[in-house]
Amino acid sequence: RGVAAEQQTSSGASVLGLDPVSGLDLSIEDKIFKITLNRPSKFNALTLEMYKGLTDALNAASKDKSTTVTVITGTGKYYCSGNDLSNFAALATAGKEEIRKTAEMAGTVMQAYVQAYIDHEKPLVSLINGPAVGISVTVLPLFDLVLASDAATFHTPFAALGQSPEACSSYTFPHLMGQLNAAEILLVGKKITAEEAQRRGLVNQVFPDTEFAASASKIVSAFSKLPPQSAKICKKLLRDPHRQKLTEINAIETETIKERWQSSECHAAIAAFMSRSKK
Amino acid sequence: RGVAAEQQTSSGASVLGLDPVSGLDLSIEDKIFKITLNRPSKFNALTLEMYKGLTDALNAASKDKSTTVTVITGTGKYYCSGNDLSNFAALATAGKEEIRKTAEMAGTVMQAYVQAYIDHEKPLVSLINGPAVGISVTVLPLFDLVLASDAATFHTPFAALGQSPEACSSYTFPHLMGQLNAAEILLVGKKITAEEAQRRGLVNQVFPDTEFAASASKIVSAFSKLPPQSAKICKKLLRDPHRQKLTEINAIETETIKERWQSSECHAAIAAFMSRSKK
Amino acid sequence: RGVAAEQQTSSGASVLGLDPVSGLDLSIEDKIFKITLNRPSKFNALTLEMYKGLTDALNAASKDKSTTVTVITGTGKYYCSGNDLSNFAALATAGKEEIRKTAEMAGTVMQAYVQAYIDHEKPLVSLINGPAVGISVTVLPLFDLVLASDAATFHTPFAALGQSPEACSSYTFPHLMGQLNAAEILLVGKKITAEEAQRRGLVNQVFPDTEFAASASKIVSAFSKLPPQSAKICKKLLRDPHRQKLTEINAIETETIKERWQSSECHAAIAAFMSRSKK
Repeated sequence: RGVAAEQQTSSGASVLGLDPVSGLDLSIEDKIFKITLNRPSKFNALTLEMYKGLTDALNAASKDKSTTVTVITGTGKYYCSGNDLSNFAALATAGKEEIRKTAEMAGTVMQAYVQAYIDHEKPLVSLINGPAVGISVTVLPLFDLVLASDAATFHTPFAALGQSPEACSSYTFPHLMGQLNAAEILLVGKKITAEEAQRRGLVNQVFPDTEFAASASKIVSAFSKLPPQSAKICKKLLRDPHRQKLTEINAIETETIKERWQSSECHAAIAAFMSRSKK
Repeated sequence: RGVAAEQQTSSGASVLGLDPVSGLDLSIEDKIFKITLNRPSKFNALTLEMYKGLTDALNAASKDKSTTVTVITGTGKYYCSGNDLSNFAALATAGKEEIRKTAEMAGTVMQAYVQAYIDHEKPLVSLINGPAVGISVTVLPLFDLVLASDAATFHTPFAALGQSPEACSSYTFPHLMGQLNAAEILLVGKKITAEEAQRRGLVNQVFPDTEFAASASKIVSAFSKLPPQSAKICKKLLRDPHRQKLTEINAIETETIKERWQSSECHAAIAAFMSRSKK
Repeated sequence: RGVAAEQQTSSGASVLGLDPVSGLDLSIEDKIFKITLNRPSKFNALTLEMYKGLTDALNAASKDKSTTVTVITGTGKYYCSGNDLSNFAALATAGKEEIRKTAEMAGTVMQAYVQAYIDHEKPLVSLINGPAVGISVTVLPLFDLVLASDAATFHTPFAALGQSPEACSSYTFPHLMGQLNAAEILLVGKKITAEEAQRRGLVNQVFPDTEFAASASKIVSAFSKLPPQSAKICKKLLRDPHRQKLTEINAIETETIKERWQSSECHAAIAAFMSRSKK
């Protein structure tokens, strides 16, 4: 169901007020604000417009009084293949100043996107229906509940692509799974299964793919029925000790990746990736 | 064995100086200061008197020169069913000012109780003989060793009861098991088994129920024979980097739960729980 | 292969400039700077000269432009049996002032050694070929990748030896595996297997002993081929949030262990250990 359809079912003015964005479906079902990545032909890769639409949707959901829980999931085989590298395809041929401007702009968009997770006031649930790559993995520790199909995999090949971790993962991943497990994923670039992600604390529960939608839906529905003030206050207590640090790390990681996007290592790695993809 | 019996076996004046408290047994066995929750008819739920007695006992054990290790365990089927909700039964019918005073008083008692764990100078061992609920779970990361029977379960349904996490768990649980596993327990309210608690780092070792007492006793005995100064210094090194933060979080969580206890969400949830319990 | 042999294969002047140290082999193979503990008759126990040699080698490798990854491993059955207690054999019979001077000197050497890990700028890999004891275990969370043979075990009996944790382990171990798992190892002194170390996040991957060298070599080789600037920047992002705290903790732990080395508990424990070893 697209945004147009959802506008008929959604009940909050602040939700209706959101502009439709290609690749994103928004819906309100009972007490659940649901964001669905819907760009399956590109494995739900995130365009700059989708980043902005997600930021707006998260911020609106955070304040929406008609819902108690915010959910993000994907359509098709993938959950999300991460940053759409076509966002940076121009980098290889552009002049230095143009590259700098593009990196600056993309960094600003990404920083606001991550900040929307840091500041989200409601329980936030991710339903990982399939492979997750890059920034769709690194934001996971900023959720409160992550449920995954056993068809999901998790991959963040930052160093191999000449880039660097974002979404506060340089801080949250070591905190979540320990320094060595974090470095193995963020630095070595190891791809892990849903079961392995659960062992590392990156996923709460894994379900057989055929049962995933139904099982996850039941858990989210129960979650949405908790006393809403208490749920928000529990979440606030869990987030507050880290909020300032997360905001600082978001800024540092953004500066770092903007510099990376202007580096020859990154340009060479993206060019090699693009050429492999076309074969 | 009750306090009266123990007074004959205990060797330190500071232990003998402790007033007897209904529901608590204190004993000194060799180098071990043992606190036993003994209110099995109420599943070892904690009355305000028990909180105060435990605080005094922990503080006395911390300074006692005749013992090297402090142990807490329970009598009967339960380890501890947490806060005795009858502490708050009056809230439903009382006037606003009376509720405020009760919340203020109970908050002060609980804050001192938690601080006694933060500041305890000796190795602290929990022997979880059966189900653990609420604050008996949330204090566990403030111990140094947690051994459990496979009859134990762990449950902290704070949000469902209109309340909020205490005992520094909003800080210690994410540090111990990662943000997502912590939120699943403290926010979603999932009840976990002893095996699952071990996988999450909340329990060190799990034993078949029939072998639990003997196996745990052997481990505690060996633990109590370590060079005592070195053991205290190891513990101090492990605690010091977090002590100030723990003290701050204890204060923040106390303010939060005092406010929760005065909320209509909490009153409705407790009333519903009480009425379910009576059926 | 000893240092002399290596000097013929190494390509960087800063590597060649290192003085040979008995018990340490240095080599450069492709993009890999390899440090091998080679004192198998003493289970690769670390003499004060080896601490200094390792510190110099780590600092040189960190700045070396010809290599991208630094690796530490051991020769023979053991990875490393930790601090050579003969470093402290004299303590039992020496006078107070002599003991103070020895403790002061050894503490300074150890602090510089640990700081070399904290400040190392390149991906750092440990290949644990067999049992690891004491400081060879406590530094592991300062690596970026730890691969182990299933013949490896991990043991840090600090309290039992009248000593205290070093190498920032009082901070890194709770961060890595949670407070309770950390205390069980650092305070209770439990020895764990490679599989258990992996479950606790202290080891990334475990291999059958016969396949260890070949499997590890393949992983390290792939790791060394990542874009080097990106790899260094990823590592820097992961380390920076903790670098100041690690440096502070290193100083605190050093002061603590210097005091321990002058304590009668420590002298008695080392004397007992030495006398057991001789039987």
